[in-house]
Amino acid sequence: MKEKQLIINGRTESVLYAGSGLGEFVRKISGMPSSSIHVIADRNAIAPTESILPDFFKRISSGLPPICLEADERNKTLAEAERICLELEKRGADRDSLLVVVGGGITTDLGGFVASVYRRGIKAVFIPTTLLAQADAAIGGKNGVNLGGHKNMIGTIRQPAAVYLCGDYIREMPHGLLMDGLSEMLKIFMITSPSDYEKVCGIFSDGDFPVKSDTGHFFELVYSAAKEKMDIVAEDQFEHGRRELLNLGHTFAHAVESVTGGTVSHGRAVAEGMLLAAKAGVVMGATSPDFLYKIENDFEKCGITGTKIEYGRPSDLLPHMLVDKKKHADGIHLIVPKALGDVAGVSVNKNGLEKILSLI
Amino acid sequence: MKEKQLIINGRTESVLYAGSGLGEFVRKISGMPSSSIHVIADRNAIAPTESILPDFFKRISSGLPPICLEADERNKTLAEAERICLELEKRGADRDSLLVVVGGGITTDLGGFVASVYRRGIKAVFIPTTLLAQADAAIGGKNGVNLGGHKNMIGTIRQPAAVYLCGDYIREMPHGLLMDGLSEMLKIFMITSPSDYEKVCGIFSDGDFPVKSDTGHFFELVYSAAKEKMDIVAEDQFEHGRRELLNLGHTFAHAVESVTGGTVSHGRAVAEGMLLAAKAGVVMGATSPDFLYKIENDFEKCGITGTKIEYGRPSDLLPHMLVDKKKHADGIHLIVPKALGDVAGVSVNKNGLEKILSLI
Repeated sequence: MKEKQLIINGRTESVLYAGSGLGEFVRKISGMPSSSIHVIADRNAIAPTESILPDFFKRISSGLPPICLEADERNKTLAEAERICLELEKRGADRDSLLVVVGGGITTDLGGFVASVYRRGIKAVFIPTTLLAQADAAIGGKNGVNLGGHKNMIGTIRQPAAVYLCGDYIREMPHGLLMDGLSEMLKIFMITSPSDYEKVCGIFSDGDFPVKSDTGHFFELVYSAAKEKMDIVAEDQFEHGRRELLNLGHTFAHAVESVTGGTVSHGRAVAEGMLLAAKAGVVMGATSPDFLYKIENDFEKCGITGTKIEYGRPSDLLPHMLVDKKKHADGIHLIVPKALGDVAGVSVNKNGLEKILSLI
Repeated sequence: MKEKQLIINGRTESVLYAGSGLGEFVRKISGMPSSSIHVIADRNAIAPTESILPDFFKRISSGLPPICLEADERNKTLAEAERICLELEKRGADRDSLLVVVGGGITTDLGGFVASVYRRGIKAVFIPTTLLAQADAAIGGKNGVNLGGHKNMIGTIRQPAAVYLCGDYIREMPHGLLMDGLSEMLKIFMITSPSDYEKVCGIFSDGDFPVKSDTGHFFELVYSAAKEKMDIVAEDQFEHGRRELLNLGHTFAHAVESVTGGTVSHGRAVAEGMLLAAKAGVVMGATSPDFLYKIENDFEKCGITGTKIEYGRPSDLLPHMLVDKKKHADGIHLIVPKALGDVAGVSVNKNGLEKILSLI
């Protein structure tokens, strides 16, 4: 089992582990000091988890069944967080209890939020079961629930004690979930590592991953993406600077998701958002048209822009971009990819954004 | 205007101000960087605030009326927090907005929680309007809402950017609110400052405060209690050690409040809780009976134990004490006053607690 520590102000805030199987990690969790262990799990994550390690759920929490949830954006609410807290209360969880969260990004967001507020905060361990959660969502401590249809408007930034990436989830992952995670991996590597970006494109461009491929090689890249994200978080946990770059494509993506009423997958929306951000870069003279063509081509070959999205014209996104939770006093901080490994934030006000959207 | 900084790990996390009037503080708030200022206020705090500074609410938030709440334990819920977040959203609050919270402990607890989760955290400023909030509740960053009838089971620990104690609230404060705050002040000074404890008793033992008294002299002691609490928080923000002493009387008090269904004021319950904690100390041989008699006498002269509470026998409190959110893996950490300035935590398990309760 590999590991990397997230160190902030000289303190280890979180540890990222990566390996195969779940047995070794179950032993690690059992060795963590706690008064009791409770599990929150996405209903859909139970079968894959039990297939990796039979009786995982029984073993980890002394026979108690997990607190299950339907990982759906519509359930990512304060009311659902309260339901889980009441269930923890009923099961006797106290402030020294440990919460193990098993599932994709919705589950780690919701479970992480519960851990950050239940009895003013209990320890959490994440076992992300989707590529998106492994490479991105479960890393960095952002958690949250939706508010009145707007995503993650309520939440905290608080690191889980540990995150465990288990390579075995990759092999059986449905294609759609792979594509969702792939968008976020390409985003991270577009910011931090041109060589890893190209490696990921290479693996996916023949279209038949993971059927004929070595998933172990790909899993190295997943771990690498998570580590790259951790380095950014270590530098800027509360997003006053460099962490903002990780929003690349997301202001557009959230607007696309709003306009389309949640019918588009997050990965697809993020891929579209990165292309729109690159187009904005071209309009602003920051990005070369060649780079835009390159990533359009890369995304298509990887299959992340395979389905078409109907959201009208870019200018229809404006009102949705203006309610983005990342909005600042000086307007929207648009994250623009200039080249591989060269991504920057630019402040634009409402008028500027309107102009940009009318031109792309 | 006096001030004291709360410095944690070399960083100023919060500033405590104390003074009279509200004008100078309004100017200070207006000078804080923010994209917009929004106010949450207890409905009952509006009249006293406007009588100290006419048009306070108009001045502070560019004419917007405050977001009002009924400061009642029954409203201290996640649902109410969500209602306030939605209202902030509607008013265009973004992550650089500043939240000004005006009211007693319920309001600063709820408002502080909203500030800690709205868009993953926005800056908050507290103007506590009751003695309890000025001396205790608004200090130290604990916030929260109730869960299924249990107090503050959901919340975070996050410091407000500033807390302003305005002495003018004291003069017009109803007697019951003074008594509530007085219990917490005596608690703090019992831990940190025997001389301030005696001064407070001296002021209140003639029974006609504030009618014939110099409220300015008393307000010095309020500021002193808040500062003493800040010193403890600076040392142990997340309550792994010394901060726990501030729970003196509270495990008993929360149980008394549960048994009596919230019909007893918090201050009265805390006074009872401190006496029960002292009795537990006597039973354990840690506290001299003389000290117990002294504080019983002091509390009575100050008027904080004037009303009788019917909660049955101490042993009836057991089940309610066992669900206290401060419960640890090793049982309840009972905080016991041994003498003025000498308060200590003792771990007792369920059987030990049962035994103690049967003897007091």
